[in-house]
Amino acid sequence: MTEQSPLDLAEGDPFGPHNLPYGVFSTADEPGRRRLGVRIGGHVLDAGAAAHALGSPYATLLAQPSLTPLLAAGRTAWRDVRRALTAWVTVPAHRADIEPLLHPLDAVTMHLPYEVADYVDFYASEHHATNVGHMFRPDGDPLTPNWKHLPIGYHGRAGTVVVSGTDVVRPCGQRKAPTDPAPVFGPSVKLDIEAEVGFVVGVPSELGTPVALGDFREHVFGLSLLNDWSARDVQAWEYVPLGPFLGKSFATSVSAWVTPLEALDAARTAPPARDFPLLPYLDDSAEEEPGGYDVRITVTINGEVVSEPPFSTMYWTAAQQLAHMTVNGASLRTGDLYGSGTVSGPEVHQRGSLLELTWNGRDAIELPTGKRTFLEDGDEVTLTAWAPGPDGTKVGLGEVTGRIAPAREV
Amino acid sequence: MTEQSPLDLAEGDPFGPHNLPYGVFSTADEPGRRRLGVRIGGHVLDAGAAAHALGSPYATLLAQPSLTPLLAAGRTAWRDVRRALTAWVTVPAHRADIEPLLHPLDAVTMHLPYEVADYVDFYASEHHATNVGHMFRPDGDPLTPNWKHLPIGYHGRAGTVVVSGTDVVRPCGQRKAPTDPAPVFGPSVKLDIEAEVGFVVGVPSELGTPVALGDFREHVFGLSLLNDWSARDVQAWEYVPLGPFLGKSFATSVSAWVTPLEALDAARTAPPARDFPLLPYLDDSAEEEPGGYDVRITVTINGEVVSEPPFSTMYWTAAQQLAHMTVNGASLRTGDLYGSGTVSGPEVHQRGSLLELTWNGRDAIELPTGKRTFLEDGDEVTLTAWAPGPDGTKVGLGEVTGRIAPAREV
Repeated sequence: MTEQSPLDLAEGDPFGPHNLPYGVFSTADEPGRRRLGVRIGGHVLDAGAAAHALGSPYATLLAQPSLTPLLAAGRTAWRDVRRALTAWVTVPAHRADIEPLLHPLDAVTMHLPYEVADYVDFYASEHHATNVGHMFRPDGDPLTPNWKHLPIGYHGRAGTVVVSGTDVVRPCGQRKAPTDPAPVFGPSVKLDIEAEVGFVVGVPSELGTPVALGDFREHVFGLSLLNDWSARDVQAWEYVPLGPFLGKSFATSVSAWVTPLEALDAARTAPPARDFPLLPYLDDSAEEEPGGYDVRITVTINGEVVSEPPFSTMYWTAAQQLAHMTVNGASLRTGDLYGSGTVSGPEVHQRGSLLELTWNGRDAIELPTGKRTFLEDGDEVTLTAWAPGPDGTKVGLGEVTGRIAPAREV
Repeated sequence: MTEQSPLDLAEGDPFGPHNLPYGVFSTADEPGRRRLGVRIGGHVLDAGAAAHALGSPYATLLAQPSLTPLLAAGRTAWRDVRRALTAWVTVPAHRADIEPLLHPLDAVTMHLPYEVADYVDFYASEHHATNVGHMFRPDGDPLTPNWKHLPIGYHGRAGTVVVSGTDVVRPCGQRKAPTDPAPVFGPSVKLDIEAEVGFVVGVPSELGTPVALGDFREHVFGLSLLNDWSARDVQAWEYVPLGPFLGKSFATSVSAWVTPLEALDAARTAPPARDFPLLPYLDDSAEEEPGGYDVRITVTINGEVVSEPPFSTMYWTAAQQLAHMTVNGASLRTGDLYGSGTVSGPEVHQRGSLLELTWNGRDAIELPTGKRTFLEDGDEVTLTAWAPGPDGTKVGLGEVTGRIAPAREV
């Protein structure tokens, strides 16, 4: 009896050859050497070594310490590399070459897979925006008048995007309740999550020239899960009139794995019906393929499921966000990352933030580790997700996890 | 009679040896070779070649195609390099080595001197914020309740920071006047400037650890003039609730020259008296050196002076902005750039935006090239500035200029 190959996956493994997300890893014996890897089941394939062993024309591109060169290489290269990788992990004749290049996931360290250029965060869930509007602006309409005419977004801090597994230090900052006479300073007491999907730009665009809706797949390489940590007390005091700043900029966590869009073709789905006709640059009603993705997220705190946000309910699609973000001529760079905004569905258990789940702290949720309104030190938050794949399979998205470390004294 | 040396400057030249700003240039015969340069009078000194010729220990650092390595090198290196450069352009014994390495400014092309990491824009002029508040929120207090407690800021788009001289394509976008039934799309009809001073971060900081007020000069290398182009109609429709996005992200222009803080020691000045006591992390009343800089900006449109904004009137200092930006643990990276916010003084002719100068288009200004409310295609906007230097000298800041190119069809 021979030992089972890591390539012999259990039926229905969400990280089978139909998935093949990319990441950057290092091993304990060579911690300084970062390598491009592809996940297959519970292992990561050293993509550069595999390409070299098999004489691939993409050996140089894959022998990089970062995903950035592949991101920049464009759609034809993305397709060809994926086709080659699929063959390497499925064609029996390659097994002898490939198996020695597989590392168990628990034996590697994962790194941020590419250098983040600009980071933008959107606000594309109608349910989330409505919930937040009710809480933060109780006297007005919950949705601002522009909300259904354009995908609202803002720039975040690219330099504090961290890879899954990085501890998040509780931020300090100013907060002031409306009834307080003056702001106070200290560790945030309303530390929250935002469950999101992030989109990674590969091919840049020229300054001054918009990217059309239909060119989404020429520019965007793939997606990651994203947790846009938020200090609600800091945010509430600072955000008028110029938007979120320190309430968000202390950390944004992304999954170590970038799932190529090609793995998610079976997950495409129509976005919700639009309540207003959209301006032509955002009007996707005549696009060949539906713009939504049926990604099903699960949020856990200390291992307990607290929410299951459905990405398919987002009002604005990633293609619309890209078209909007560039319609003023703003250029794209390789490594630009944009988040969907918190994913919240219509149901209470589908809300992607504690702000919404606890209604700004009014209704604590019960966990085996105690009641929670917002996050406590030591809490570990994990987002996982899957999407429908071809032929009834599931495509797993890499998890994004982070633990809250205590605030540091200033 | 010998030809005059480029090092024999006219008395009072604002780009004398007391100044020595850094930039990156290329020459027509080697357009692909970017070199670090230092401005002296009307010339740029090839800093790497000079260091090599004179056997400087900093020859490798200065022989780079970018200012980034010097930015990262830290304060001791900054001081030592500046000391060396000062000697090279002043000590007669060096003339024979240095003179051949000087290029007339009109014979070189200047480039963005460093890679911009994150770009943050502040809102630190009380006069500007008050004017804008009056126009955009006429029914409320012009300053939001947080304004005098913290330096309000937001992240901008680092990828569209361009060097002085780059054309600015008129952005398209959505706009909607309150009385319009629905938004319309088209080229911005309220294209504006914002006259600012930008600060360039050299030394990074650790994620999770704030940078104290007093550590400003350990991290910040120098400053540039900055024009934060703004489409007021796009901005007005989009900015509630998450702040400016497409109204700003199409372009931000910076001067080609970065003036080291060391050149501006004589320009330090106390900021205005504070109306409220500040929280300890922002309280600069006990700092050894005053936190303001007496930089006097002149704004011209098509060569006509339209404004003279005084940077000394800013309520929040660059050191306070740095302390605030990191107090939540957000880390700094080499190449982070932050803008002061529009510089507007108390007088009408000191306002740093057309929004304020024309009171949102109500009062046109008269130029020889015609009346202006906002910018027209072909208009060229230039910011210049100087600050007091040692012994009665003036320290010139490199200009930032840009011309409006017509919108491109979507």
